[in-house]
Amino acid sequence: MRVSTFSGDDIAAMDDRYRVFFVNALSGFKPATLVGTRSQDGQDNLAVFSSVVHIGANPPLLGLISRPDSVRRHTLENIAATGAYTINHVHADIVQAAHQTSARYDHGVSEFEAVGLSPEYSARLQAPYVVQSRLRIGLEHRQTIDIELNGTHLVIGEIVEVQLDEDVIAEDGWIDLGALDSVAVAGLDAYYQPRRLARLSYAKPDRPLRALD
Amino acid sequence: MRVSTFSGDDIAAMDDRYRVFFVNALSGFKPATLVGTRSQDGQDNLAVFSSVVHIGANPPLLGLISRPDSVRRHTLENIAATGAYTINHVHADIVQAAHQTSARYDHGVSEFEAVGLSPEYSARLQAPYVVQSRLRIGLEHRQTIDIELNGTHLVIGEIVEVQLDEDVIAEDGWIDLGALDSVAVAGLDAYYQPRRLARLSYAKPDRPLRALD
Repeated sequence: MRVSTFSGDDIAAMDDRYRVFFVNALSGFKPATLVGTRSQDGQDNLAVFSSVVHIGANPPLLGLISRPDSVRRHTLENIAATGAYTINHVHADIVQAAHQTSARYDHGVSEFEAVGLSPEYSARLQAPYVVQSRLRIGLEHRQTIDIELNGTHLVIGEIVEVQLDEDVIAEDGWIDLGALDSVAVAGLDAYYQPRRLARLSYAKPDRPLRALD
Repeated sequence: MRVSTFSGDDIAAMDDRYRVFFVNALSGFKPATLVGTRSQDGQDNLAVFSSVVHIGANPPLLGLISRPDSVRRHTLENIAATGAYTINHVHADIVQAAHQTSARYDHGVSEFEAVGLSPEYSARLQAPYVVQSRLRIGLEHRQTIDIELNGTHLVIGEIVEVQLDEDVIAEDGWIDLGALDSVAVAGLDAYYQPRRLARLSYAKPDRPLRALD
């Protein structure tokens, strides 16, 4: 292994496109999700996001990072207008369809139709789920925090509905994302299928870890 | 597949521990990282984090979500005091050591020594890297945003140094995290080794996707 060191100046001097690929991979594996929204005039929107982050369990809150100037701005606009969105896990069979939602479709085009995924509505919220997804989360928007350092936003929502196969929930509440075939993303465009190494016991200073499997 | 629906009320009614496991898995696969800091009196600290999130490429910014009342508060205190921290990717061989850093060690104990990992310093910042890690990122603290909804914090730092094997960087800047054996986390304690499905081309409305591999 030849370890190289890149300074902040080295990163600043990179070609724009090279830097985007390089820095986007540094944060490590990310979740592959599809965010579903509906505009006030009834137009469905679907966009792939890898910036979902756990904020808290009680109340159950998820965050996502978004920039206003991307193709995903319809998502932000719809969340602001309706207060509702869904986060749908991507599994291996729908990776191509999920990635294809990042194309710049015209406003009148539903990404669902364009990429071959099906919307589904629940009574609880004004946003479409992805039928094909195996873990579907419905959220009500709680707060958007502007990150002035670079003009991005942290969008925080409270989980008001979760749909998944009960069989993948362990006795203690943990969900086996491997059994759902959920995928991970590295950078902007590389999709990975994770295989479980181990579930480890709660760590204590003077006790060896056990595998919980 | 028997799809079950959990409402917000169902989640609120869960046993506390069950809800923690359940909700922590909903955000999907997360990066397994070790955050290294040093106190002003020279005490090294190392803590496993799975809440690292990409904020932007130019300037290169990473965020992490932290709560003040956890064992990880030393991390926050040290970042506030020195302005420096490192984020080190966890690979399969150091998963157990990484998880063990979450034990509640006394303040005078260095998690590096306790779990068998080695600190290393660069001239650029007052925080220890993990020698064993294959992707090491040095950061300067830029901003901490309080999330009043639940008392957590979004800690944002600018990347000032990156150390990794040059051979895993693709021609376009993308980093093959699979070649580094970086791992992903589901929930609080389950570690996964991702295998690449595909790198996909930039999506356009009327063009099929290609695999870039």
